[in-house]
Amino acid sequence: MLGIELPVFAFSHCRDVVVEVSKAGGMGVLGASGFPPERLEEELAWIDAHVDGKPYGVDLLIPNTYEKRAVGKLDIASLIPKEFSEFLARKCDEANIPPLPEAEAKALLKEQLDKVQMTPEEATGLLDVALRHPIKLLVNALGTPPRETVKMIQDRGIRVASLIGKVDHARAQVEAGVDFVVAQGSEAGGHTGNISSMVLWPQVIDAVAPMPVLAAGGIARGSQMAAAITMGAAGVWTGSIWLGTAQSELEPKLKQRLFAAKSEDAIQSRAMTGKPCRMLRSEFSEMWQQPGAPATLPMPLQTIATAEMRMRIQRAGVEPYMSYPVGQVVGDMNSETSVRQVVMTMLEEFLDAAGWLTMLVEESI
Amino acid sequence: MLGIELPVFAFSHCRDVVVEVSKAGGMGVLGASGFPPERLEEELAWIDAHVDGKPYGVDLLIPNTYEKRAVGKLDIASLIPKEFSEFLARKCDEANIPPLPEAEAKALLKEQLDKVQMTPEEATGLLDVALRHPIKLLVNALGTPPRETVKMIQDRGIRVASLIGKVDHARAQVEAGVDFVVAQGSEAGGHTGNISSMVLWPQVIDAVAPMPVLAAGGIARGSQMAAAITMGAAGVWTGSIWLGTAQSELEPKLKQRLFAAKSEDAIQSRAMTGKPCRMLRSEFSEMWQQPGAPATLPMPLQTIATAEMRMRIQRAGVEPYMSYPVGQVVGDMNSETSVRQVVMTMLEEFLDAAGWLTMLVEESI
Repeated sequence: MLGIELPVFAFSHCRDVVVEVSKAGGMGVLGASGFPPERLEEELAWIDAHVDGKPYGVDLLIPNTYEKRAVGKLDIASLIPKEFSEFLARKCDEANIPPLPEAEAKALLKEQLDKVQMTPEEATGLLDVALRHPIKLLVNALGTPPRETVKMIQDRGIRVASLIGKVDHARAQVEAGVDFVVAQGSEAGGHTGNISSMVLWPQVIDAVAPMPVLAAGGIARGSQMAAAITMGAAGVWTGSIWLGTAQSELEPKLKQRLFAAKSEDAIQSRAMTGKPCRMLRSEFSEMWQQPGAPATLPMPLQTIATAEMRMRIQRAGVEPYMSYPVGQVVGDMNSETSVRQVVMTMLEEFLDAAGWLTMLVEESI
Repeated sequence: MLGIELPVFAFSHCRDVVVEVSKAGGMGVLGASGFPPERLEEELAWIDAHVDGKPYGVDLLIPNTYEKRAVGKLDIASLIPKEFSEFLARKCDEANIPPLPEAEAKALLKEQLDKVQMTPEEATGLLDVALRHPIKLLVNALGTPPRETVKMIQDRGIRVASLIGKVDHARAQVEAGVDFVVAQGSEAGGHTGNISSMVLWPQVIDAVAPMPVLAAGGIARGSQMAAAITMGAAGVWTGSIWLGTAQSELEPKLKQRLFAAKSEDAIQSRAMTGKPCRMLRSEFSEMWQQPGAPATLPMPLQTIATAEMRMRIQRAGVEPYMSYPVGQVVGDMNSETSVRQVVMTMLEEFLDAAGWLTMLVEESI
């Protein structure tokens, strides 16, 4: 369907990872939903220049409508309770997290607000940028895209897929006409549902058959890939494992924290976005559990309200507070590796595991 | 190691399930940790009379010490806050849940308290009962058993295993000298950790190699079994799936509620025991989330404090409040089946899945 040699899909915000995975025979998918259109244009131009014509994809929010809407800009900042801002300020003081230059802090807030209050035209702008490049796959990060938008994209020879974490959502995607779904278990990094991969995958595979299903959540090893394929998945969708490669642009300090973490350190928390998001446990995720801490705000207020603190933590490299969305496979990531190494090891382990099962079954018959 | 034909282990509190699974070539394991010694004696005698000499096992808490200890009996009931008891009474009134006869309520409380304040001698009593029967396997339900107790059991020709949900705990079991471990992912029913099967199993398999590992959590289908074996598990440990069989003694109303449930209805809650326990969502699990509800009490107080209400719900069959520990595979259970049918379907699906993988790999080489 996609002209790839290995059914390994790699979600990454780093263009180098996307290019390397595609060149290794898999399918790199650029996570672009947080990018402004100009940035996406720049990244895709770079990928086109380096990917040697191999297929790659983009993951973004497909806008729900093309219609113009008069969206009055709300004063969102005023919706953040005073105690909440005071709590953040106190925490920054306690941890000696240096402030941002004032102008930068203002620009950051504006950027956050602009992103949240994106009009349908602006959202379409991101999709338009993607469609100007020779992408082979467009993945919808959240919700169900409109049928006509899916068709418009497919008519350009691009396959459309959607991420889902529930059987009902998978069925809605079939209705919307996507080419395949990515079934993501609760062990995945970022926003996920509550159903684990082992339980979710076969249910989704049954529900949407004969539509292909990619397995996501908890995949970093070839044996996990073999398990997914055994259960009927058409391929695997991975994310966390690439964060630890030399091609990932993650801060070195954060990489080291990921390498030191165990699986139980990848917790579900509302700290970052207000929605349950699996991320590395840190002082930032834990401070909301302390007595006297305010409740987290609903999405998107939590993202906006904490943006400055998170940026301050990152700029100053305050390690105990540093966090990042990551799945439970973080426990398997122990030192820096390379994209090519990950792909090769995964393939080797996959063939070992498949060979093992074949041998067992032949012996027992 | 155990003289069984199929590497399928079935945990159940129902002797009929244990017998039927063992007779079908698997290994029935009676969950006995809640039984008084006389009850266990009775159940095991029945199993011995019906199992046709096939191997079976028992799951209980292996006592941590043989030493006599003077355990002063605390007035545990006095540790339950008044507001807590009032909250339960109010909820029972609101839902019109009929009371138990007074004598019965008293006996129930005594039974709960006795269970909690079990002396080491009493706990040993349960183990002694098990050892008087021709069991082939003893599974330790919680914690790490003492090395000398493990050896004493093994010297009688009985294999010893332990349930674990974390890699560190698996290593401790190796130290204790058990024959194998059961690695249970967070999707399982009952008390579990937070790491999903897909991530946990390969980590535990690596950590304890060459000791065999059974895969538990999220297994109700043959394709899931094939996935576990592919990843290197020596066999599978199942529980929830047997609740829906004709051989299960679960109340018919509760069975129907399980058949109607989706995977997302198997939630982690502290409502039953004070520790996170995966169970069917019900008014009983949800009432602790309501505004004004007290916090759940630590184990074992929550179990004791809620015992009467839970018994009232069960006796009167108040459906919206009925719950039971169950894993996320509850979403795959839709109508009553039989033990034999489950075993046969699982085996068929297993061979299908294994054949599918073999074919794929052969084609791609």
